[in-house]
Amino acid sequence: MNNNIVNLQDKLQALLLSQQGNFVQGSVADYIPALAKVNPALAGISVAAIDGKTVGVGDYQRPFSIQSISKVFGLVMAMNRIGDSLWQRVNMEPSGQPFNSIIQLEWEKGIPRNPVINAGALLVADVLTSHFSASKLAFLSFMRTLAGTEAIYVDNNVYQSELSHGNRNAALAYLMKSFGNIQADIPALLSHYFTQCSVSMSCEQLAQSLLFLANKGVDPRTNEVICSPKDAHRVNAILSTSGMYDQSGEFAFSVGLPAKSGVGGGIIAIVPGYGVICTWSPPLNKFGNSVVGVNLVAAIAEELGLSIYH
Amino acid sequence: MNNNIVNLQDKLQALLLSQQGNFVQGSVADYIPALAKVNPALAGISVAAIDGKTVGVGDYQRPFSIQSISKVFGLVMAMNRIGDSLWQRVNMEPSGQPFNSIIQLEWEKGIPRNPVINAGALLVADVLTSHFSASKLAFLSFMRTLAGTEAIYVDNNVYQSELSHGNRNAALAYLMKSFGNIQADIPALLSHYFTQCSVSMSCEQLAQSLLFLANKGVDPRTNEVICSPKDAHRVNAILSTSGMYDQSGEFAFSVGLPAKSGVGGGIIAIVPGYGVICTWSPPLNKFGNSVVGVNLVAAIAEELGLSIYH
Amino acid sequence: MNNNIVNLQDKLQALLLSQQGNFVQGSVADYIPALAKVNPALAGISVAAIDGKTVGVGDYQRPFSIQSISKVFGLVMAMNRIGDSLWQRVNMEPSGQPFNSIIQLEWEKGIPRNPVINAGALLVADVLTSHFSASKLAFLSFMRTLAGTEAIYVDNNVYQSELSHGNRNAALAYLMKSFGNIQADIPALLSHYFTQCSVSMSCEQLAQSLLFLANKGVDPRTNEVICSPKDAHRVNAILSTSGMYDQSGEFAFSVGLPAKSGVGGGIIAIVPGYGVICTWSPPLNKFGNSVVGVNLVAAIAEELGLSIYH
Amino acid sequence: MNNNIVNLQDKLQALLLSQQGNFVQGSVADYIPALAKVNPALAGISVAAIDGKTVGVGDYQRPFSIQSISKVFGLVMAMNRIGDSLWQRVNMEPSGQPFNSIIQLEWEKGIPRNPVINAGALLVADVLTSHFSASKLAFLSFMRTLAGTEAIYVDNNVYQSELSHGNRNAALAYLMKSFGNIQADIPALLSHYFTQCSVSMSCEQLAQSLLFLANKGVDPRTNEVICSPKDAHRVNAILSTSGMYDQSGEFAFSVGLPAKSGVGGGIIAIVPGYGVICTWSPPLNKFGNSVVGVNLVAAIAEELGLSIYH
Repeated sequence: MNNNIVNLQDKLQALLLSQQGNFVQGSVADYIPALAKVNPALAGISVAAIDGKTVGVGDYQRPFSIQSISKVFGLVMAMNRIGDSLWQRVNMEPSGQPFNSIIQLEWEKGIPRNPVINAGALLVADVLTSHFSASKLAFLSFMRTLAGTEAIYVDNNVYQSELSHGNRNAALAYLMKSFGNIQADIPALLSHYFTQCSVSMSCEQLAQSLLFLANKGVDPRTNEVICSPKDAHRVNAILSTSGMYDQSGEFAFSVGLPAKSGVGGGIIAIVPGYGVICTWSPPLNKFGNSVVGVNLVAAIAEELGLSIYH
Repeated sequence: MNNNIVNLQDKLQALLLSQQGNFVQGSVADYIPALAKVNPALAGISVAAIDGKTVGVGDYQRPFSIQSISKVFGLVMAMNRIGDSLWQRVNMEPSGQPFNSIIQLEWEKGIPRNPVINAGALLVADVLTSHFSASKLAFLSFMRTLAGTEAIYVDNNVYQSELSHGNRNAALAYLMKSFGNIQADIPALLSHYFTQCSVSMSCEQLAQSLLFLANKGVDPRTNEVICSPKDAHRVNAILSTSGMYDQSGEFAFSVGLPAKSGVGGGIIAIVPGYGVICTWSPPLNKFGNSVVGVNLVAAIAEELGLSIYH
Repeated sequence: MNNNIVNLQDKLQALLLSQQGNFVQGSVADYIPALAKVNPALAGISVAAIDGKTVGVGDYQRPFSIQSISKVFGLVMAMNRIGDSLWQRVNMEPSGQPFNSIIQLEWEKGIPRNPVINAGALLVADVLTSHFSASKLAFLSFMRTLAGTEAIYVDNNVYQSELSHGNRNAALAYLMKSFGNIQADIPALLSHYFTQCSVSMSCEQLAQSLLFLANKGVDPRTNEVICSPKDAHRVNAILSTSGMYDQSGEFAFSVGLPAKSGVGGGIIAIVPGYGVICTWSPPLNKFGNSVVGVNLVAAIAEELGLSIYH
Repeated sequence: MNNNIVNLQDKLQALLLSQQGNFVQGSVADYIPALAKVNPALAGISVAAIDGKTVGVGDYQRPFSIQSISKVFGLVMAMNRIGDSLWQRVNMEPSGQPFNSIIQLEWEKGIPRNPVINAGALLVADVLTSHFSASKLAFLSFMRTLAGTEAIYVDNNVYQSELSHGNRNAALAYLMKSFGNIQADIPALLSHYFTQCSVSMSCEQLAQSLLFLANKGVDPRTNEVICSPKDAHRVNAILSTSGMYDQSGEFAFSVGLPAKSGVGGGIIAIVPGYGVICTWSPPLNKFGNSVVGVNLVAAIAEELGLSIYH
């Protein structure tokens, strides 16, 4: 592994520059108005290493809507809270279907394929809603601890927008409830879920927050145990097979890192034993992943010789 | 990584012993008579390291029907032969469906989800049949080179059995042909495909043969380049997301190694930078993977601290 | 056609008697407690002819939960209210899927296959909820007019039970709303839908109420036009291809009448130019149709020489 | 029913004329070259009544490729040959899927939904191939008897074309064989099936040949029993729910007659108790049904007051 971090900032800067022409190859998420008006030319990169080194370029300190990246944090909270019983209610298999498909959920009797597709994340949200007296606050508190700052907020504009365009997620939740796999009231569950999705964070905050996944569950800045080594392994495994929607296989094939994307344009990639890469660029490809983000993570992984598959 | 190989043989022996009671938890493949009569109590383990060390216990030198493990070798041959054009005819996404599902193939207009489900392996067989004048011989020759011995044979009994029970594979092939994604005549294609599946090899031979995938494409015994580093990476990525049928996600979650199983009871697992594990035990679980094999690979990976996800 | 109605009562009595042993071959609907406690041995038959003759045997005057038979009435109301624009929001094709399948709805982008599967009936309920200021009252008023009595009520016990077990219908409704094919608020829509389903009527009332479908849209008792001849034709066509859930083809094959069943155990069958048959017996077969009811309608149709297919 | 047949010829002539502009709204079947070169402006109508009256206009005596209309004749032969055991190998439910879908066949374990979709017709062909020593001759002989002429031939050009583009049908057949629901060798089965499809007949011949279905199984010209009244009923029921591919429901809804179409542009419609309508016009709509043919049958049915649904 190339540890020559001194020049990394320059390299990241060059990489970001090389992607200027690619913003137009995707489209900013437009299913909710609040996301549709984001400036498509904003872009940032942050790389945080477990040894404490950290670099960032572009808009790496500007908060954006983390959207589905929140699924990683929700999953860790649920694993910590109810342990292995979680895996009786959600599988850990790749989905082979678009991320919000209701077909598979019906086929598999209300058991989501994995916790990072929408159905699975709703299931996780049900666990949190049912097991925390104030699950939204608990989630925010977890995020603030990991980010090392109280200044992590929910974007209320995004939240309201999600809520008023949440019919498909409601359908998924009611379908799971019809199979007996949801305990909470659906409105409360959706309120928690959309709160998670509507958190705003910067590349720098996200990269720092997820260092424990690259370090066997331990936050290297504080030595605090965030989750067990086994659970860090499991989360990385799930992100490797399923974190990039229906482009997960291609991402493994061409990049080779556990990763999770969000329709806000963010991508986080875990490098076990090394650190975390976070990129942000709003225009999305047909799979719902950031066009420039995928390119950037691929280039950084190749530049630094990081991949779990060789 | 625990490199203390001196005690490995003892540990493997103990592991194998500990699995004696588990043979009864699975059923030997019975879709063809030739496989149904294998002794379910046979079992072997071979671990080959790229530094040349190698250990084996149990029936590790006894040849068995490699079945779908042959898909790994066929894939490498096809990648070498036609390069990236292969990926216009087969995807690299996990399937989220049972391994021989025809539904997904119909949905995706004759493009298989990946090259290690049956449809994808038939596509690969089409490439080989169409691009080699004597594709079966070419395949055998490749296997013999990798195994370092001429004594690699096709089990004709298995081959005839496959041929007479190959209706579903014929259906998959004709369906792809109806979409224009198959060039060869189907009988020739199936003949090649079943030849591949009917090769017999031992755990020791398989582990040795696949060392190049743990070593960036180079066979460490001969320093011969078997495939490019990029293609070794790609194969490992595909095996990680899709190599264990519809248990691939769970295997990544609990074990964390690129692997491929066959209904003959074999499993190979690649440990990038370290070596190859091969196990054999015929009784299969509901996913078509060896019950004892999955347990053994999991235990060996944990014992040696091998996993790509932490 | 055998018009010898004088002996019909005796024949119906004999037919009903002959089915005594068959109650045990089905199971009373148990998805809601209110239906689960109905006495499985209750049974009735009513045959109403457009010439005014009417006969009934058994419990033919005892009200039961009409459930999905209400879909026929809702459909007629919606056709009358918004005309052919209805058919841009719902198709008229048989479904080829279990009656409440969400898979087909997803495949076909929120357009239900036909108005007598659950998704289609929810769509119809959306039309009624959106186009009547008090849609439940309007529905009840329509039923009372057709039945010729004010004594038609909603069983509140059934209604509350439906409401608290309505998650799958909620999922269907939210999914259609996510495709833009539902206008009403879902809770209001579901409240209307479950009100329809929870109406109680007797065999005699149902048979009388539907005479207009056997008489080109005109109620023969009052000469009032209930719907156009074309719409009566259309409803009969839809009931012929789709009225008996996933047993519709078999029912056409072996009986040959437009019909609609409900999980309350009722079946109505239209005989164009002749009249209406209504049977009631709670135990259901695996398709959700009354076991004894299917037998009875088949026997009556054969006895009277009634079928549209010869 | 309007029995004024004296003017029928004039009315049919006027109807045919009124459709001149509609040929361009469809496309001639082009999946095989032999069909693609048919003149799209050819068109004919024949109406045969069971009382012996018969009229025809346009190209009603010109033979065309009957294609899937042959499924009706094959079905009758198979019902006659093996009786009710047929219905253990094929269902009688509408499909709710495009006519050659392999998905449904997989879902339902190799049991086709009904005998007039491709999978079901292949199943029927298997029955004929397995139960007649010379099934193609037997089929031709049956057609010649019904048509009342020896001059019924297979178009060898079409046959060869079908054979070389039959991969999807091969896939369907092999899939059914993999479920144990096909007995014959697939090549022999396909040869029979494509022979059936490649028969050429005129509107007049088809209308005459099918009079028995309008007359409770008895050929009114000869008083010969072609099938039982029950089986005539059953065939009409199946054609009503499933005869017009995925437009069957709409055809019932707007026309209301048991009917079967073929991609050669023919449509036959049975009017129980009256006779048979046959139309021919090659350009097809998106469902595979003749654009002008659907219009013509609808207009004739309305003109003559023929529909089974009022």
